[in-house]
Amino acid sequence: MLAVVAFGGNALLRSGQKGTFPEQLENVERTCENLVPLLKQGYQIIIGHGNGPQVGNGLLRHAAGEAAYGLPAQPMDFCGAETQGSIAYLIETALDRVLKRNGLSQKVVSLVTRVEVKADDPAWSNPTKPVGPYYAEAPQDGAVYREDPKGRGWRKVVPSPVPVGIANVDLVGRLAREGWIVVTVGGGGIPVVDGRGVEAVIDKDLASALCAVKTGAEALFILTDVPKVYINFRRPGEQALDVLTVADARRYLAEGQFAEGSMAPKVRAGIFFVENGGKECIITEAGELGNASCGTRIIR
Amino acid sequence: MLAVVAFGGNALLRSGQKGTFPEQLENVERTCENLVPLLKQGYQIIIGHGNGPQVGNGLLRHAAGEAAYGLPAQPMDFCGAETQGSIAYLIETALDRVLKRNGLSQKVVSLVTRVEVKADDPAWSNPTKPVGPYYAEAPQDGAVYREDPKGRGWRKVVPSPVPVGIANVDLVGRLAREGWIVVTVGGGGIPVVDGRGVEAVIDKDLASALCAVKTGAEALFILTDVPKVYINFRRPGEQALDVLTVADARRYLAEGQFAEGSMAPKVRAGIFFVENGGKECIITEAGELGNASCGTRIIR
Repeated sequence: MLAVVAFGGNALLRSGQKGTFPEQLENVERTCENLVPLLKQGYQIIIGHGNGPQVGNGLLRHAAGEAAYGLPAQPMDFCGAETQGSIAYLIETALDRVLKRNGLSQKVVSLVTRVEVKADDPAWSNPTKPVGPYYAEAPQDGAVYREDPKGRGWRKVVPSPVPVGIANVDLVGRLAREGWIVVTVGGGGIPVVDGRGVEAVIDKDLASALCAVKTGAEALFILTDVPKVYINFRRPGEQALDVLTVADARRYLAEGQFAEGSMAPKVRAGIFFVENGGKECIITEAGELGNASCGTRIIR
Repeated sequence: MLAVVAFGGNALLRSGQKGTFPEQLENVERTCENLVPLLKQGYQIIIGHGNGPQVGNGLLRHAAGEAAYGLPAQPMDFCGAETQGSIAYLIETALDRVLKRNGLSQKVVSLVTRVEVKADDPAWSNPTKPVGPYYAEAPQDGAVYREDPKGRGWRKVVPSPVPVGIANVDLVGRLAREGWIVVTVGGGGIPVVDGRGVEAVIDKDLASALCAVKTGAEALFILTDVPKVYINFRRPGEQALDVLTVADARRYLAEGQFAEGSMAPKVRAGIFFVENGGKECIITEAGELGNASCGTRIIR
């Protein structure tokens, strides 16, 4: 049984934390500990993960390094690649400890991963993801900047195109089926168009879903900080969903039941997976993994 | 025929350049183009590479990000992992173009790679590698700082322990023999002791040599910016060496013929390789690769 597990943002950084190295490692180790029940049930695992705060910090560090030391600030794809290296290192370190502690013999391997997006994706004409530092005035550098609604200044916005191909994904699937725990599509992958890096953010849940489709995984686990998907979330009539069919999921999405930038992209990733051959997508808290009734199961 | 090729610093950054993204990509592409003759001769290739300027810039960016934005500066092992991601991304991008242009069908895969060093390595009591920013006064943070001889301030110095193990090296060898071009041990690898990251710099040529030994490679190519190894380099009696036996290499090293931090570690890496089963180590300019008489061959 092959599963792709998409780590959520809180796998690395918890609210109130500044993100020191020991904090990040402890967070990752706690998340990895939650994979143990899946591993003991015989799952082969591919790990995808986000990098939102990390690549944001990277862009700030590059801006600060240019201002303080004249070091050329590198583009976003380069910064994303940096986070693939550093987050994979954290995951490998944490997971090795967890595996050893639990007497498990799996080994971990992490691939730097480019993900193909389309030159004609409609997202290019509608950049939505704010990234990097705030500026008092929008730099005239050809990028798109938007004024922050809270008055913090101008910030670059980049598109979030749909992933259509994953470099080396056949190898990822093969290694996972051999028993390797494979870390890939970090931060949604380094976005490329015809092999050329582009400034964009690929949704990490969608990239993980694509990876699950391409590797023929049976299950996609999307980890988040709530135990289930809800309708009327934090409103009267709130209801946790145990099962969500694609038809219901689409209806709820159309009703605006799921917050953009939060639950909506996870549900869309689940729909993508089960509509393209996957059996089920489970959206859940990491701590619930392995419980038969955990999370919300998106099914056809 | 399996070969490990260790990219030199100038594969990424040339003197006089600031290291913009286009500059780095162009440099890497030029170096990768030089691998084509080896590939056409049937070599299977593992690529190791340095990260000296890159991890130095990373440490500066982390220091600047902490000063400007309060972002916690991450430790050196984390910064090294970042460079593995970003440099692998540059190499994959450049190499894909080169392979396509030359009608070659190999694929590239890059692994984030931890490298084991020993807790009792004598290097720990003798840190020698200066890294990161200059400080007006040595920070009292438990690290070792040395005053710069040119008066630029105090700078952290870290040890350079010997690599003794490479994570996933069996997989690296297997994939390379299947025809993958595998990028690994970037920057000499992320140094770990018993699985825990440590602040150190592993010599990238020595890590590449260890990788060559562990994968049973036939040849180790160490790329540099001179065509051969010389005795009496840039002095009267200068002589380029075509062949260098281990015995002669040791004698020249003892005489101080090879500069520390430059040719000496390359020669030591070559000795290590051929003394541990390797056939030959070739120290050469990238542009000479594939010529039968290229570089200096270190043999037993």
